[in-house]
Amino acid sequence: MNFQETYQKLRARTLAICASLSPEDHVVQPVVDVSPPKWHLGHTTWFFETFVLAPHQPGYAVFDPEYNYVFNSYYETVGARVIRTDRGNLSRPTVEEVRRYRSYVDEAMTAFLANEETLPEDLQAILRLGFNHEEQHQELLITDIKYILGHNPLLPAYTTAYERPVVKDIAEKAWIDVAEGVYEIGATGQSFCFDNELSRHKVYARAYAIRDTPVTNEEFMAFIADKGYQDFRHWHSDGWAWVKQHQVQAPLYWQQIEDAWYHYTPEGLTLVPLKQPVCHISYYEAWAFAAWAGYRLPTEAEWEIASDRFDWGARWEWTESAYLPYPGFAKAEGAIGEYNGKFMVNQMVLRGASEATTPGHSRNTYRNFFQPELRWQFTGIRLARSL
Amino acid sequence: MNFQETYQKLRARTLAICASLSPEDHVVQPVVDVSPPKWHLGHTTWFFETFVLAPHQPGYAVFDPEYNYVFNSYYETVGARVIRTDRGNLSRPTVEEVRRYRSYVDEAMTAFLANEETLPEDLQAILRLGFNHEEQHQELLITDIKYILGHNPLLPAYTTAYERPVVKDIAEKAWIDVAEGVYEIGATGQSFCFDNELSRHKVYARAYAIRDTPVTNEEFMAFIADKGYQDFRHWHSDGWAWVKQHQVQAPLYWQQIEDAWYHYTPEGLTLVPLKQPVCHISYYEAWAFAAWAGYRLPTEAEWEIASDRFDWGARWEWTESAYLPYPGFAKAEGAIGEYNGKFMVNQMVLRGASEATTPGHSRNTYRNFFQPELRWQFTGIRLARSL
Amino acid sequence: MNFQETYQKLRARTLAICASLSPEDHVVQPVVDVSPPKWHLGHTTWFFETFVLAPHQPGYAVFDPEYNYVFNSYYETVGARVIRTDRGNLSRPTVEEVRRYRSYVDEAMTAFLANEETLPEDLQAILRLGFNHEEQHQELLITDIKYILGHNPLLPAYTTAYERPVVKDIAEKAWIDVAEGVYEIGATGQSFCFDNELSRHKVYARAYAIRDTPVTNEEFMAFIADKGYQDFRHWHSDGWAWVKQHQVQAPLYWQQIEDAWYHYTPEGLTLVPLKQPVCHISYYEAWAFAAWAGYRLPTEAEWEIASDRFDWGARWEWTESAYLPYPGFAKAEGAIGEYNGKFMVNQMVLRGASEATTPGHSRNTYRNFFQPELRWQFTGIRLARSL
Amino acid sequence: MNFQETYQKLRARTLAICASLSPEDHVVQPVVDVSPPKWHLGHTTWFFETFVLAPHQPGYAVFDPEYNYVFNSYYETVGARVIRTDRGNLSRPTVEEVRRYRSYVDEAMTAFLANEETLPEDLQAILRLGFNHEEQHQELLITDIKYILGHNPLLPAYTTAYERPVVKDIAEKAWIDVAEGVYEIGATGQSFCFDNELSRHKVYARAYAIRDTPVTNEEFMAFIADKGYQDFRHWHSDGWAWVKQHQVQAPLYWQQIEDAWYHYTPEGLTLVPLKQPVCHISYYEAWAFAAWAGYRLPTEAEWEIASDRFDWGARWEWTESAYLPYPGFAKAEGAIGEYNGKFMVNQMVLRGASEATTPGHSRNTYRNFFQPELRWQFTGIRLARSL
Repeated sequence: MNFQETYQKLRARTLAICASLSPEDHVVQPVVDVSPPKWHLGHTTWFFETFVLAPHQPGYAVFDPEYNYVFNSYYETVGARVIRTDRGNLSRPTVEEVRRYRSYVDEAMTAFLANEETLPEDLQAILRLGFNHEEQHQELLITDIKYILGHNPLLPAYTTAYERPVVKDIAEKAWIDVAEGVYEIGATGQSFCFDNELSRHKVYARAYAIRDTPVTNEEFMAFIADKGYQDFRHWHSDGWAWVKQHQVQAPLYWQQIEDAWYHYTPEGLTLVPLKQPVCHISYYEAWAFAAWAGYRLPTEAEWEIASDRFDWGARWEWTESAYLPYPGFAKAEGAIGEYNGKFMVNQMVLRGASEATTPGHSRNTYRNFFQPELRWQFTGIRLARSL
Repeated sequence: MNFQETYQKLRARTLAICASLSPEDHVVQPVVDVSPPKWHLGHTTWFFETFVLAPHQPGYAVFDPEYNYVFNSYYETVGARVIRTDRGNLSRPTVEEVRRYRSYVDEAMTAFLANEETLPEDLQAILRLGFNHEEQHQELLITDIKYILGHNPLLPAYTTAYERPVVKDIAEKAWIDVAEGVYEIGATGQSFCFDNELSRHKVYARAYAIRDTPVTNEEFMAFIADKGYQDFRHWHSDGWAWVKQHQVQAPLYWQQIEDAWYHYTPEGLTLVPLKQPVCHISYYEAWAFAAWAGYRLPTEAEWEIASDRFDWGARWEWTESAYLPYPGFAKAEGAIGEYNGKFMVNQMVLRGASEATTPGHSRNTYRNFFQPELRWQFTGIRLARSL
Repeated sequence: MNFQETYQKLRARTLAICASLSPEDHVVQPVVDVSPPKWHLGHTTWFFETFVLAPHQPGYAVFDPEYNYVFNSYYETVGARVIRTDRGNLSRPTVEEVRRYRSYVDEAMTAFLANEETLPEDLQAILRLGFNHEEQHQELLITDIKYILGHNPLLPAYTTAYERPVVKDIAEKAWIDVAEGVYEIGATGQSFCFDNELSRHKVYARAYAIRDTPVTNEEFMAFIADKGYQDFRHWHSDGWAWVKQHQVQAPLYWQQIEDAWYHYTPEGLTLVPLKQPVCHISYYEAWAFAAWAGYRLPTEAEWEIASDRFDWGARWEWTESAYLPYPGFAKAEGAIGEYNGKFMVNQMVLRGASEATTPGHSRNTYRNFFQPELRWQFTGIRLARSL
Repeated sequence: MNFQETYQKLRARTLAICASLSPEDHVVQPVVDVSPPKWHLGHTTWFFETFVLAPHQPGYAVFDPEYNYVFNSYYETVGARVIRTDRGNLSRPTVEEVRRYRSYVDEAMTAFLANEETLPEDLQAILRLGFNHEEQHQELLITDIKYILGHNPLLPAYTTAYERPVVKDIAEKAWIDVAEGVYEIGATGQSFCFDNELSRHKVYARAYAIRDTPVTNEEFMAFIADKGYQDFRHWHSDGWAWVKQHQVQAPLYWQQIEDAWYHYTPEGLTLVPLKQPVCHISYYEAWAFAAWAGYRLPTEAEWEIASDRFDWGARWEWTESAYLPYPGFAKAEGAIGEYNGKFMVNQMVLRGASEATTPGHSRNTYRNFFQPELRWQFTGIRLARSL
């Protein structure tokens, strides 16, 4: 890896994602799960300043010591946090100041990475983590921008002039059979992975079948038309309470206008395309759809075992696995150790990747995770059944 | 009144108040009572467009029909509102777009007001209301900007390069005696007033004394030092619950650093000046202070009767009067009628004006009103006692 | 006054109110404003033990020292309170134990009051306060029992075999005119009154008319039929928010079954009688009804001035007066001083009395007070208009 | 199985659990997870009436048709539910009425079960389910009674004169090693089990060790003394938020008095016995304790595989497994199908049994489940580590 070049390309892509935003778009936080784009720009910069430059670059002067207070995220070890729900109230530092902060750190990082043959192994590991961390925030930027603009009553269009996969229409559907037996899942650790993917281990799987394509909008419309949102029998108890409390009637961003389904996209409000995979649904909805259809969701092991035999990457696919440590999981020392382990409760695993995932960031051992009610990620459904 | 010139001067002052803000500062809404400055800029413009240009200027084209949805405030009659708590999530329209909206309406209004001899009487009344309405929002802009920046962890300074009264230090204090008898209070209606000041009527007052100056920071510090915030006996039951729930220990914007009291101001964090009138306190605190001091707050009638005999205008002064209709109060027809009457419950009357009030906007019959727990206005205390 | 006899009759009436209750009915607290009947039984007993026996009866042994913790109410001076919302979770002491507590205290009080010629003046004042205090709780017992049983899905009937006025049907309605002028209101203090009724003082009133009868159920049904609950123009802003949040569509205890209005009563669910005064409405509803009818509510002064000229006592009548101190109001020292003064904010005054008020407890200077959204008291409407 | 005798013994034990309660104790619901004992008495009766007598006993007359509304629990299929948080507001039906309801149903059931040779297979299955259902409610009765009395400020003692295991002191501790390999877990279905235990299936386990005894109070005190509740590094992110929000500092029912730890028990407040297994802790606390001690919790598979080699049954032991369907899980048709499947999200599995579990109700395939913050069950900790 050429660290300097990778760094520069990475950092440029983050800015490209925000290129069409107004300063105002960078500031708001409509719900607690969405962070203001400005915060993502500052936080990813803070990561490199805090874990690379400050400890490893002699003579490095921190851009602004108060920024640690503003841009630190969940790292309790490193200092007091801005309470997450307050992020949307911070008009300062301004976007311009945050961009100056980025330039300042980028300049220092570029110089720091000039002689990469001298980078010790553990520093290389932190750099790789920083790169992947920023790629994660690139995806969050895309989802958060969509949420911010998609919840503005003017429903403004915006441009997405950055590299991004095209999601193909789905024509045929087929089932893939997998035989009973012992399989291996998890990352080997020979290339980059997050700590939660380690270590590779054996699992026992019963025979099952898994669909080779995700569920389409057309299929999901049949669930809606069959009053799936009105029949408690398809739902978890918690899911049913969620449907009733929030009066959920369709995927996020959908609205019905004179019998036709529209959804918010970067082009504004457009007709929901029938052959595209359904998107922006919660685990509760995924599970209810599968129950209604007479199937179930795959476990994360079932997903990973069969993943070489189907296309994935258009949607994050909810699995029937809670986010828990793999056998032998151990968290790292210090602030970096807070990265994943402490979230291993109350969340469900998603597998795959999505049209919002940074190209190159995906692998079939990747364990994404969210609370079962969340919908602002590009989430979808893959069906399974026991044989 | 030269309507055209008054309009232009008024509108320019609103922009001057926002002159030192970044676009980002215009967007946030840290608490429900504070509105984003951008919203004030749009809402005051919407008022002239909706109540003057649209109905009275033939051929006027509305700038953007969707803006009614965004900038309408409490006027249920005129159309669907943006729920007030959502105002802080609106990144669009941008500040630049809102300023274009202002320019567009200002141009049309300037032309419309060119021949003011032709303005019918009722239209003149609406214009005067619009001017006073925007002056009210000028004060809210000042208080909201202070709140937004004063709750940013960076505590940024900002410039206030617009006309604004200087608050004098308080040296001497004296009591003014008022004899028992029948007095008249309320506006005569011969010059502009809000509907809630009408009609002038007689009240019977017992003999009382009222202080000629507001309570100072120094006096309020004595209350704090005497553990006034820790002794329930000084407080209303609701006030005591409020103190405990929010752990209130000092006026808003105050913080204690090594035994000295500081407060947030446009210059950033500065020492609290002892001789200035105390500011940013709730009705609960005003009442508790008075009880602790052995006095009470004046009623609004007592305040108005004696108001010619003391200086006022530095602080909005909490009175011991709930905000209720005067005898003979009647609300206007249509959306304008929603202006005041529907708020006449659950609020307390404040009298006077403050350093944030637009010069010329004050009169001694003015009835300001807020919920008893609110503190972000420039509110203070004047003491009274029965004779 | 024969203190001993008055005491015994008073205490017996409290038990009579609870006579038809099961032990279970004594325990529950469906909403925070309602207290479990058991708590009323204990609290009124605690009053006599704490303020009479413990300080004035040599050698008196407190029944159970822990009961102060359970049965103290709002008296912060006397010790830690049971948080009010927790009252409904207390299964112990049992009803039987509370009744033993009552007997124990009653025996001691009866002995204590045997020689009443020796009672000093200040102790007589405390006794009178205790009697009136228990009479207030008798009314609360009646309203709370109705709420507890009226919110049980079985809607059980119950007996009310205690002295209670009959509410007459309303046939004719007329307006009473009152001339402009200075009037006196408030209690003289020559017979018992609460501190909030003192002192008698002059007020100036404009000419007005006031209805000689309260508004009937039939009149209120016309408001409902005219979609009064669906038209924001009749309501306060806070009232309208309350209607929408709670989806209020009729007075408390009313339900519509196949086009007929029923309400819950001690006899169970019965038809709403057209000629009876409307009951169980909030201040918001009273105000909205008056606005819809083209009238207004009287102030408490207007009510009291005219009160000798109309029948009152069937319903607590909401006035257009906030609960605030009278001129010259001063609260007593110590715990007794917490009785009224600390509630003088955020509540509205009600005048009159109701079918639930203990006979003999009424007078036309009485100032009752509740928050504007509360409905579980026997509250109604009297109309007024300016002349 | 002799159904009639089993039924009678079962039903008698339920009443024995409530024998020392006052009527008042049967009514209250201090938190949403606790149900009033009266409700348990009625609900278990309703089960037999609804699923056995009503459909299968010709001519059976329902005791009171309104009771379905009151005593139905989560069975959406069978009719409208009483919202669970309202259960504590129901004073009617009284305890006496509920006991009459029990007698009425018991009489009918006893007659119905007289000729058990005629019971068809599917009805036998429903009876077995009803028996196990009531045993589950027996445990809930014990935990709920403890909660109700343990949160009363009088901390009353109570008798537990029903069969109940004695929890032994723990002297020695040792680790049990388990070799890597494929194991079978789950119920075979040859004797009674709940649907969530089916079907028996293979799992792959890495080598691990598991402690042969649960963690003691003494060990947990060391965690407290080492400031385990104050160090975020031991906790899940959600667990840490829970600790801070509720200011958790010790297991439920513990309080520190002058350096000694006491806990509430049926004998009232007593010293915490050092050698007994720690009890009434949340999953968050169990996990944090294990992290602090340098170990981890076992998965449910690890627990079950080794369960023949250690004593269990004193505490429900939190596992590191989320409550999810086993391979091949399928829910039953109709209301019975709501029994388990719809709760399979957002909860953690507990294994074992507790001193509150009905004797005979336990087996090593049993899957209990609760939300990770709940503590009112008799929950404890068993440690594991990877080899």
